[in-house]
Amino acid sequence: MSFELLATDPSSSARRGRLTTPHGVVETPVFMPVGTQGTVKAMHPDELKALNSQIILGNTYHLFVRPGMEIMQAAGGLHAFANWDRPILTDSGGFQVFSLAKLRKIKEEGCHFQNHLDGTPMFIGPETSMEIQATLGSDIAMLFDECTPYPCEAKEAEKSLDLTLRWAKRCRAWIDEHKPQTGGGAQQHFGIVQGSVYEDLRKKSARELVAMGFDGYAIGGLSVGEPEEDMMRIAEWVTPLLPANQARYAMGLGTPPQMIELIARGIDMFDCVLPTRLARNGTAFTHEGMMNLRNACHAKDFRDLAEDTHPLCRGFSRAYIRHLVQAQEILGLRLISLHNLHFYASLASRARQAIEQGCFAEFRAEVVAKYTSHPAAPES
Amino acid sequence: MSFELLATDPSSSARRGRLTTPHGVVETPVFMPVGTQGTVKAMHPDELKALNSQIILGNTYHLFVRPGMEIMQAAGGLHAFANWDRPILTDSGGFQVFSLAKLRKIKEEGCHFQNHLDGTPMFIGPETSMEIQATLGSDIAMLFDECTPYPCEAKEAEKSLDLTLRWAKRCRAWIDEHKPQTGGGAQQHFGIVQGSVYEDLRKKSARELVAMGFDGYAIGGLSVGEPEEDMMRIAEWVTPLLPANQARYAMGLGTPPQMIELIARGIDMFDCVLPTRLARNGTAFTHEGMMNLRNACHAKDFRDLAEDTHPLCRGFSRAYIRHLVQAQEILGLRLISLHNLHFYASLASRARQAIEQGCFAEFRAEVVAKYTSHPAAPES
Repeated sequence: MSFELLATDPSSSARRGRLTTPHGVVETPVFMPVGTQGTVKAMHPDELKALNSQIILGNTYHLFVRPGMEIMQAAGGLHAFANWDRPILTDSGGFQVFSLAKLRKIKEEGCHFQNHLDGTPMFIGPETSMEIQATLGSDIAMLFDECTPYPCEAKEAEKSLDLTLRWAKRCRAWIDEHKPQTGGGAQQHFGIVQGSVYEDLRKKSARELVAMGFDGYAIGGLSVGEPEEDMMRIAEWVTPLLPANQARYAMGLGTPPQMIELIARGIDMFDCVLPTRLARNGTAFTHEGMMNLRNACHAKDFRDLAEDTHPLCRGFSRAYIRHLVQAQEILGLRLISLHNLHFYASLASRARQAIEQGCFAEFRAEVVAKYTSHPAAPES
Repeated sequence: MSFELLATDPSSSARRGRLTTPHGVVETPVFMPVGTQGTVKAMHPDELKALNSQIILGNTYHLFVRPGMEIMQAAGGLHAFANWDRPILTDSGGFQVFSLAKLRKIKEEGCHFQNHLDGTPMFIGPETSMEIQATLGSDIAMLFDECTPYPCEAKEAEKSLDLTLRWAKRCRAWIDEHKPQTGGGAQQHFGIVQGSVYEDLRKKSARELVAMGFDGYAIGGLSVGEPEEDMMRIAEWVTPLLPANQARYAMGLGTPPQMIELIARGIDMFDCVLPTRLARNGTAFTHEGMMNLRNACHAKDFRDLAEDTHPLCRGFSRAYIRHLVQAQEILGLRLISLHNLHFYASLASRARQAIEQGCFAEFRAEVVAKYTSHPAAPES
């Protein structure tokens, strides 16, 4: 088994685990920085290692469109191409096809679309997605699914889920036939639970995927606009149906308290663009909420971003970083990205420690109580 | 004396020197990365140290306009603000006032202008420039001068030079009165030789500045459009008139062969925006000339940028960097900036070694012969 359960929290469903992949071990709960186009925005791989990033994401859709599979094949996969020797997880491409591509047509065979760069007609179906991800050589490949929008009528959600399940079967068949390898080991494949906000659909999705047997399971279609209570409820419906000895991944999430609350519901893996996306907007995460460095109150604040900021950010004052942001200097977003990724990595690391030490309940209460979720609230 | 002459080249006027400043020692000939707005574009100070950057530049005009002197004063100067503990040289602000500011009016007292950001009316004169640079706390401050355009009639050039010389006297008086300190030592001040392409004016400028007595001397008004032969001729007129035991700085230069040819004419210090500016355009320096990473011929070229690229750039192929440039990912320009700054730093370091070892003539011939000066010539 690639996933080892090391400890569980008596007060919740939180778990401390260890996922072994061909390119290395991942301690969970884990936060995974997003490397959309084969690079975590503004970061050097050496910095990601200094941040203790255990595993990063790659986006199948983006890499399929550019640089394309011919170059990726010639490079020998994404690890070699991006000069990253630790684990990589790739998504299926489905989400971006639905959110970015033009003139997309979803059919039984898969999805026809025009790419967002130059409108070239392209196709991704379950087998294509598996094949692309095999070429990318990611350690963990995600199944090709359809992600329902929010809100979504029950009937539509069911129709979409049934298609996703038929696609999952085709992915399963492709994997069994091709047995893709990477880094001298077997590529792992995670199923994605869909079903919108409907309990019966979510449970059906989880049960059928588990019956097909994958290496791990993700919850998809979260954070698409639904209330936070729905997000938590969905996790509560689904996780009890997933095998305890396999990893669970909540896709595309979330704010710091959401991450902690989902850990409490038995989720092991997270990815989120917020740390790097908000950095480009001048926003830093703190234990008390978000800090917008553009605000005038930071102009003469010569303190570091936080006392526990990353060593690479020490000695750079809020006043200086504010100046860099105002002057649109790259070092500004680099420093905030480093700080934010460190913030998320530390949160996951502290969660791991809290579960190990049996004090997750206190940790959870403290983090959630301290954090103000108003995004970039005006300060002073 | 702050400048020590360690070795001279028998075949040319090249010199190997050592400049001692309050924030540390600078081995010359030296290339100084440009940190216009208090940051060398896209670089982290740790990277600059990994590149062996001995001294960086700051732009008085830019820092005066933003963040402004109130913040700079509160920060305790540019070293503390930018988290850089090695030497800094600041220019006088004159060049940017003339090239960037709007509605500028040059009068006897100095220059009135509207800043390029929001049009606020501002003033910089010789005393203001000295005062700003004292507040910035640079190790080397440049005198406030007027830089003539090219071409420039002899009469105009003479009128401008006379103003620059009167301004130099006022700078001298301000320095003698205020004796600005930085890093526990005396700030140094370099005079700037002007006079366009006219031998009599250039020589007059050099003689009068030397008579006033400064800590070092720069040649200004180069690379403003004049033919390269003029640039070299000007250096040949001026350097013999400058004291051998003081540093000489050619402002805003140049291509790799220009740098070597000016070293051969007795110049010790260089600054140039090309390494970082061209990086943002996808262009890397090589010993054979410039390489435009956007060109399709690099799409499947999995070699490093160069065999002697910087360790921080190793393992990143031309194909990958091309992808990053095409996808407008920051890591692309970071890697090319690192490579280009390393290229310039290595060139200066090799020049130092060649002068020490008595083989500068061979080094000079080899570098100049190999380098093709066609900017970003199409390859393949």
